[in-house]
Amino acid sequence: MKTLTLHEDPCSGNCYKIRLTAALLGKPLTRIAYDILKGETRTPAFLQNVNANGRIPVLQAGDRFLPESNAACWYLAEGSALIPGDAFGRADMLRWMFFEQYNHEPNVATLRFWLSIVGEAHLTAAQKEQIAGKRAGGEAALALMEEHLAGHGWFVGGSVTLADIALYAYTHVCEAGGFRLGDYPAVCRWLERVSALPGYVPMD
Amino acid sequence: MKTLTLHEDPCSGNCYKIRLTAALLGKPLTRIAYDILKGETRTPAFLQNVNANGRIPVLQAGDRFLPESNAACWYLAEGSALIPGDAFGRADMLRWMFFEQYNHEPNVATLRFWLSIVGEAHLTAAQKEQIAGKRAGGEAALALMEEHLAGHGWFVGGSVTLADIALYAYTHVCEAGGFRLGDYPAVCRWLERVSALPGYVPMD
Repeated sequence: MKTLTLHEDPCSGNCYKIRLTAALLGKPLTRIAYDILKGETRTPAFLQNVNANGRIPVLQAGDRFLPESNAACWYLAEGSALIPGDAFGRADMLRWMFFEQYNHEPNVATLRFWLSIVGEAHLTAAQKEQIAGKRAGGEAALALMEEHLAGHGWFVGGSVTLADIALYAYTHVCEAGGFRLGDYPAVCRWLERVSALPGYVPMD
Repeated sequence: MKTLTLHEDPCSGNCYKIRLTAALLGKPLTRIAYDILKGETRTPAFLQNVNANGRIPVLQAGDRFLPESNAACWYLAEGSALIPGDAFGRADMLRWMFFEQYNHEPNVATLRFWLSIVGEAHLTAAQKEQIAGKRAGGEAALALMEEHLAGHGWFVGGSVTLADIALYAYTHVCEAGGFRLGDYPAVCRWLERVSALPGYVPMD
């Protein structure tokens, strides 16, 4: 595999997913940090050379650039046990990863960013209007995870896959967005299983 | 492959993606329709038997259920030319599919749903507050597609992949959400290429 460079903001859970995947696989990553609060991913150089969408993370493999955290995790993990060996299992893993980006991240991650990183006093009126909706959406996502994990050790099959890594990243820090992990006991036990994996690295 | 059943609402672009993928591959699908405006995907029976997340589409393969439109497309297309043969290409295809669910669908599809299906007069105050933000987000997503398609015939590689199908579904009906396709000439040419594919089926 080509030299791997992660363009990241260390406070981003989306970036942490990629670091955690690489760590579990024992693949070295070079890290280049940007501060999204200072607009460092919206500069002309970043937009032209790294990601026209102005977002991190971007995984660089040699001279090619791959935006979108879950796509980068897929690239790192192809051919490994982090992706199920059967066709339905692979699709079911992607199902949870799309759920993560559609139902979980826009609620759970956004409230953490707004309330713990930007700060409630600095939010726009339009952002403040959305807090209640994002609270309800995030609680619904966590409740769906709880229901699934009450009967399963992992999201897909009998061992850790990228679905677990994708959902772990913002779930394990969700209390910074005002969610209460104590309401989700099966989720808490699963978080412990993830953090006990060989090669696990914590978020910065 | 097992018998395939699509649990869908025919007005949903997410459901159409799966129908279009199956049609391009020549795979027959049985269709079961639900009316989301009547809450037919939130009944106890639907939540217990089809999808605990209360959403369509769900692809049923034999007795197993697969929610999330892009995961269902992946399941149908594994081993076909709709998924690139090289590792970076596969990840890059997923990159555009995650972009579709994160940056495109919540803006472009939601405004179509709100303005053309629910109707602006029936929106809540909180929904009306979000129209301007979703307009800007949708225009940014379409502009990013335009920039890419100005230099490429397809999103990944030299032929149609699931990335094109995923992005086609809501882009080709985006004017129902108040977006102006005429502002995006490369997108318009790409839409014509998709609709000229052998086996193409239109949205209902």
